[in-house]
Amino acid sequence: MALMERPKNKRGYRHPPGTAPGTLPPVDPNAPKAQLRIMAYGPDKLIEETPTTLDHLPALLKKWPVVWLNVDGPDPELLSQLGTLLNLHPLILEDVASHHQRPKAEDYDKNIFVVTRMAQVSQHTQAIDLEQVSLIMRKGLVLSFQERVGDCLDPVRDRLRKGKGRIRIAGADYLTYAILDAIVDGYFPVMEAFTDRLDALEDAVVSNPDSAVVAHIHALKRELLQLRRAIWPQRDMLTMLSHDQTTLFAPETSVFIRDCQDHVIQLIDVLETLRERASGLMDFYLSSVSNKMNEVMKTLTLFSTIFLPLSFIAGVYGMNFAHMPELRWAVGYPLALLLMLLVALGLLLYFKRRKWL
Amino acid sequence: MALMERPKNKRGYRHPPGTAPGTLPPVDPNAPKAQLRIMAYGPDKLIEETPTTLDHLPALLKKWPVVWLNVDGPDPELLSQLGTLLNLHPLILEDVASHHQRPKAEDYDKNIFVVTRMAQVSQHTQAIDLEQVSLIMRKGLVLSFQERVGDCLDPVRDRLRKGKGRIRIAGADYLTYAILDAIVDGYFPVMEAFTDRLDALEDAVVSNPDSAVVAHIHALKRELLQLRRAIWPQRDMLTMLSHDQTTLFAPETSVFIRDCQDHVIQLIDVLETLRERASGLMDFYLSSVSNKMNEVMKTLTLFSTIFLPLSFIAGVYGMNFAHMPELRWAVGYPLALLLMLLVALGLLLYFKRRKWL
Amino acid sequence: MALMERPKNKRGYRHPPGTAPGTLPPVDPNAPKAQLRIMAYGPDKLIEETPTTLDHLPALLKKWPVVWLNVDGPDPELLSQLGTLLNLHPLILEDVASHHQRPKAEDYDKNIFVVTRMAQVSQHTQAIDLEQVSLIMRKGLVLSFQERVGDCLDPVRDRLRKGKGRIRIAGADYLTYAILDAIVDGYFPVMEAFTDRLDALEDAVVSNPDSAVVAHIHALKRELLQLRRAIWPQRDMLTMLSHDQTTLFAPETSVFIRDCQDHVIQLIDVLETLRERASGLMDFYLSSVSNKMNEVMKTLTLFSTIFLPLSFIAGVYGMNFAHMPELRWAVGYPLALLLMLLVALGLLLYFKRRKWL
Amino acid sequence: MALMERPKNKRGYRHPPGTAPGTLPPVDPNAPKAQLRIMAYGPDKLIEETPTTLDHLPALLKKWPVVWLNVDGPDPELLSQLGTLLNLHPLILEDVASHHQRPKAEDYDKNIFVVTRMAQVSQHTQAIDLEQVSLIMRKGLVLSFQERVGDCLDPVRDRLRKGKGRIRIAGADYLTYAILDAIVDGYFPVMEAFTDRLDALEDAVVSNPDSAVVAHIHALKRELLQLRRAIWPQRDMLTMLSHDQTTLFAPETSVFIRDCQDHVIQLIDVLETLRERASGLMDFYLSSVSNKMNEVMKTLTLFSTIFLPLSFIAGVYGMNFAHMPELRWAVGYPLALLLMLLVALGLLLYFKRRKWL
Amino acid sequence: MALMERPKNKRGYRHPPGTAPGTLPPVDPNAPKAQLRIMAYGPDKLIEETPTTLDHLPALLKKWPVVWLNVDGPDPELLSQLGTLLNLHPLILEDVASHHQRPKAEDYDKNIFVVTRMAQVSQHTQAIDLEQVSLIMRKGLVLSFQERVGDCLDPVRDRLRKGKGRIRIAGADYLTYAILDAIVDGYFPVMEAFTDRLDALEDAVVSNPDSAVVAHIHALKRELLQLRRAIWPQRDMLTMLSHDQTTLFAPETSVFIRDCQDHVIQLIDVLETLRERASGLMDFYLSSVSNKMNEVMKTLTLFSTIFLPLSFIAGVYGMNFAHMPELRWAVGYPLALLLMLLVALGLLLYFKRRKWL
Repeated sequence: MALMERPKNKRGYRHPPGTAPGTLPPVDPNAPKAQLRIMAYGPDKLIEETPTTLDHLPALLKKWPVVWLNVDGPDPELLSQLGTLLNLHPLILEDVASHHQRPKAEDYDKNIFVVTRMAQVSQHTQAIDLEQVSLIMRKGLVLSFQERVGDCLDPVRDRLRKGKGRIRIAGADYLTYAILDAIVDGYFPVMEAFTDRLDALEDAVVSNPDSAVVAHIHALKRELLQLRRAIWPQRDMLTMLSHDQTTLFAPETSVFIRDCQDHVIQLIDVLETLRERASGLMDFYLSSVSNKMNEVMKTLTLFSTIFLPLSFIAGVYGMNFAHMPELRWAVGYPLALLLMLLVALGLLLYFKRRKWL
Repeated sequence: MALMERPKNKRGYRHPPGTAPGTLPPVDPNAPKAQLRIMAYGPDKLIEETPTTLDHLPALLKKWPVVWLNVDGPDPELLSQLGTLLNLHPLILEDVASHHQRPKAEDYDKNIFVVTRMAQVSQHTQAIDLEQVSLIMRKGLVLSFQERVGDCLDPVRDRLRKGKGRIRIAGADYLTYAILDAIVDGYFPVMEAFTDRLDALEDAVVSNPDSAVVAHIHALKRELLQLRRAIWPQRDMLTMLSHDQTTLFAPETSVFIRDCQDHVIQLIDVLETLRERASGLMDFYLSSVSNKMNEVMKTLTLFSTIFLPLSFIAGVYGMNFAHMPELRWAVGYPLALLLMLLVALGLLLYFKRRKWL
Repeated sequence: MALMERPKNKRGYRHPPGTAPGTLPPVDPNAPKAQLRIMAYGPDKLIEETPTTLDHLPALLKKWPVVWLNVDGPDPELLSQLGTLLNLHPLILEDVASHHQRPKAEDYDKNIFVVTRMAQVSQHTQAIDLEQVSLIMRKGLVLSFQERVGDCLDPVRDRLRKGKGRIRIAGADYLTYAILDAIVDGYFPVMEAFTDRLDALEDAVVSNPDSAVVAHIHALKRELLQLRRAIWPQRDMLTMLSHDQTTLFAPETSVFIRDCQDHVIQLIDVLETLRERASGLMDFYLSSVSNKMNEVMKTLTLFSTIFLPLSFIAGVYGMNFAHMPELRWAVGYPLALLLMLLVALGLLLYFKRRKWL
Repeated sequence: MALMERPKNKRGYRHPPGTAPGTLPPVDPNAPKAQLRIMAYGPDKLIEETPTTLDHLPALLKKWPVVWLNVDGPDPELLSQLGTLLNLHPLILEDVASHHQRPKAEDYDKNIFVVTRMAQVSQHTQAIDLEQVSLIMRKGLVLSFQERVGDCLDPVRDRLRKGKGRIRIAGADYLTYAILDAIVDGYFPVMEAFTDRLDALEDAVVSNPDSAVVAHIHALKRELLQLRRAIWPQRDMLTMLSHDQTTLFAPETSVFIRDCQDHVIQLIDVLETLRERASGLMDFYLSSVSNKMNEVMKTLTLFSTIFLPLSFIAGVYGMNFAHMPELRWAVGYPLALLLMLLVALGLLLYFKRRKWL
Repeated sequence: MALMERPKNKRGYRHPPGTAPGTLPPVDPNAPKAQLRIMAYGPDKLIEETPTTLDHLPALLKKWPVVWLNVDGPDPELLSQLGTLLNLHPLILEDVASHHQRPKAEDYDKNIFVVTRMAQVSQHTQAIDLEQVSLIMRKGLVLSFQERVGDCLDPVRDRLRKGKGRIRIAGADYLTYAILDAIVDGYFPVMEAFTDRLDALEDAVVSNPDSAVVAHIHALKRELLQLRRAIWPQRDMLTMLSHDQTTLFAPETSVFIRDCQDHVIQLIDVLETLRERASGLMDFYLSSVSNKMNEVMKTLTLFSTIFLPLSFIAGVYGMNFAHMPELRWAVGYPLALLLMLLVALGLLLYFKRRKWL
């Protein structure tokens, strides 16, 4: 049934239990190569590159105040090169390569490692699409990794290009904030789409409660569960960043992180409200169906209780006994009809009194 | 269906994801201009103004111990002027301009920024109307921003004009408290309206449980969810104010803030009780419907089980077999009627014993 | 419907939103005057008075180690006199005058202010009656305020009069404890009344689940919600008293406060168990109704499925076709009856196998 | 109904509200006398006595390293003697005499006072029986009080007699632990009995869901609530003992207390799982009943929808109109039967398609 | 019913209440002997042994940096030998011997004692199988105990044999981590199996909601409860290890423990989502059944309300009154048929309007 289409099981590769920590997935020769995009900038200038190798990176890091390397669909080979080049902890690389992580922020000595999830509502299927985004931040460098090509970070790139506001002057910490903020704000349209769907379902329950509606509500509840798993941990993740003990985050940036966390709390608020509404809607649906069944039952009972006695009377006078005096009466037939009428009226009156009519 | 009328979607303007923090919404040339109202006072004197520009403000701030500037429907232009004039953090301005904020209090150096929500029950539709109110408090100045013209703060203005009590002597912190207290107290009539609606629904479930009642309960639960989102965060907001580390709140005022917080806790108490009652009412409704259906079913069963056998007997003696000795008996007809009577009585007795009658 | 009688809406007077804090309600010339009762005592002696004015109070305070002034139905005038005489914070007076407070304990400098709720089961209506009791305690003085005349404190007065135990030797703190303890212990009979009602409802669900039972369960759940609002905050109130930082509570008294808190926790335990049982009872009721309906349905189905085929057979042989050979057979009638018998037996056997009989 | 037999209301005596703290219940001349049992031991020797008075006690306390006095069914007289002899706080004595206490541990200066509950499944009624056990522990002495004669402490006595393990060498603290541990371990067979009952009910819901099953589930849920009230507070009680600040508990004993607490947490785990299973079982039952009703309804509908049209056709040809040409046809009767057959087959086919068969 | 097959009651041996702590279960002469497996290694070399006695152990401990002794199915005799040899606390030995422990980590002076649970989905029955694994870790030694032969630790052994990565260089703490990590990772395939089962049940509810589905959902919920009891405590267990105050865990290993804990939190996330989905599925099922019943009822009502009046008309004209003028009319029969047609059409129209068709 189309209504129940589950989001494709994007389980991807998972290490067999017992694998050594930090192991990267095996190189898949058929997988598309990772796409790199570099923005390097200072207050006055900005350059963009789409290199195919990492050879340039060390030179750029030396030359520019902030370098942002974005990788779409990182392959294991590239990750291990990056690991060697930038001296990254193997557990970071493993988490980037695996797509099952829940949002978190971790402090690895001179690196901050952040995992989060980006949400989009796909245009035609209306289903939500959650994609893992990993960030590694250190002095002067932000690495971002996405599962697939295409993202919601273009507004951030535009702000960098235009060089307006604080973004070109501030450091890698502010860029990290800007990326996380764009991802968090991307959830608001998703929430509005859900609110619209819930409103539509509510109308459907009132006007036409059929089984498709239940399947829809059930599917919506399941998607809300998915969203919940993506959003709630972001609160803790941002708390960790704003309380960060390292010197990587400037105090000025902390104010912005706090603002971003505020948005996450708003999202959680909306999400929990949606979840409660969805639960309430199921109850509402059940009582609507009970009501309809009640009405159907009343109709059935009304017809049965009126026509069964009438048919019985007709049956009695349809008996073939030789000696049934009434059958001979001239007024027998009209009297029988009158009797039936009286019985019917009596029953109708009775039902009227019991408020079934 | 009128019952399900959802509160109009007052989503208003929201920045596209990725917009720089502190960005104000675009200037809408058709939007009504913001309305300003200034009260400036000291222990002995008070003046009121409704200026159209902010030119006077600096002079007033110098001259009067406390200045209260209230803005109804702030437009982006005015906000940016205020930002420059008073040196406000861009994130404050953005939050004032957006109407999606949850109640909170933030400490921006020499300013306390408070967002809260004001509740009113609209007279004809009985729906609640929640409006965002933002306050900025600093030494000698309170700024208040409301979404629309018209508010529940007139009693505060009257107290200022009459100059009774502590309000004219105390500073901006006490005025902030007075405004917040008026807003919190404004929820009590809303709660009473809800209690009345719930009482009415309870009576309706007992007397006449139809589908309109369920829709009403469902709508009421959704509105309680909205209220919950407005009230709960006010507790934390007031905690933050009463624990404020800055010197902006005098210790004497803290006692009053604590009292106000007490009222919020009372509101939460009432709200949660209403929510539990509303949930219980849904169960109550369902069991009422089940009961009704049970009664309907019993009636149907009673009639069917009595008249089906009787009709069958009549049917048997309506058969046209050539050789049916009973049909010739002189007492055949009375005997058949007697048989029917006995069957009916037997069944009635049986149902009596099973307590269906 | 008598079952649903809601406890009268004792909303009483509430200030309009925006009223200055500490405002007392307007003097109502028709309201009954407050009744005063004074007990003043030391280890050796005790006097009782029922004055009509407060003129004596200062003299008594000087003369006696402990003075207990009890006020039934305090009027605003008396409260403002007391406020001036004893220099009480206006917020205390406002809280005493309003009857919407939740139990709490507050520390106002040299006074401890306690609000609590006293419970009684009214003899004829079986409804619970919750009344606000306010206490103000300072060195050598306990003030107690009750909404109406008549209370559960007579045993405390008797203990004072008899002068047994620690009560006459100890100070105002112990008297405060004794009053609170008497109030808390007054909840136990209430709980037992609720347990009895719940037991009776449980029996009713098993023996005769009709709609009155549901209304009763629903009403009981609502009253339990009320009790919950009265009892839970008393735990925090007592914690506050036992951790009191002022020197008003002697360490010896703290042991007794702890014991009283223990009783509150017992009450909470019983209350939550009652609430869970009441919820479970609703489920139990619903499944009982489902069961009954199932039985009714089975009976209906049994009769219908047996008599419909039989009536059909009778109908066939009641047709008036000219050429129906069976009708002429000598054994036609007995054969038809036999056929009917076999069909009925076959169906009964079928239902036996499906365990419907 | 036997299924709903409530555990006898063992409310026992409760002081009227307002009674002075530490008051013992009135002496009941008909009550059985308390039974005393003393074990006094050191590493090398052990004596047992069943005295009728407390006269010996002081001498024993002086002579033996550890004295264990167990009292079954303490009467008020004995308690007040003990109170004087051992200088016990009156609140302890009151708590021992009352049987409504929830498990707790309290530190009264040089005494540790522990209240707990012992569980047993009665052999014939399968109901659980919870009995209050109070312990007072001080250097060299353990007092234990039980509601009735007969307990689960015989294994502890045996271990003392055999003198194996650490029990004879360690002090009163270890004996306290040993008693508490025996009580906690006594809950495991109770839990297994509950698990067995739940398993049996689960089977019953699948095979034969009748109303007795619901009553059983409901009763079981109520008993689990009782168990919950007995077990949960034991965790806090043991935490209090293991964190005890007095020097009464040796560090070596704390390891054992921690182990005992571990068992309580296991019990809580099992209990909560049982509770969740019982809740789920109610849902399961309801859906089983719904299913059965659905099947019954289908059968009814099947018979009705097939035989009503057939009977109608028979009825038509049973009409007595003078001019009904079909009645004269030679093939009229067979054709009518054929028509009926076709209608029946058509309907069966239709139901087959809708998967009702 | 096969669907409800409960996991075999593996209650195993439990001491009778009151047994002395540290008591081992009685030696069962029929029980299979424990199987020992030793791996001893340093950075350069590794040896493996499968001894039958513990005689070698002391020599190995002296010679090798790390020794791992794995015991499958430990018997009481072996445990007491180990206890003596390694000077283990009797409570550790008792916990290893009992299979009812919940996951925990305890710090016994120079030993860390860890209990956890290993999960597997059995190939043919699809049921989960949870087995207790106990670990004792001290400097240079890891003891692991399993209930049965066969485990999920072979990948760890392979990593040791190949000597790759950090595992051969690091100490006993890292080996402990590696074992725990392999156990935790072993839950992921279990979760995927549950997700697949839930997906299948969801499809079944949509396509064919019969009673087998409910039994399946119920069984699945029960197994999820079991999993919950196994997984949740592992979080605390790992927290305890990562905050360990002893010097047994090197700081480098703590990073890995944190990563393992992260996996446990992921598992909890998935588990709770599965639990919510399973609960929602029950609701979904109930509403599906309600829907189906509604449809069945509509069909029944439709047929009954159409054919009852028609049969009644036929019955009227089947009456045998001598004077029924219509019967003589030439158009009587066609008129009667027409009347029936009109009644039927009228009813169909009525139902169309009420949207029952």
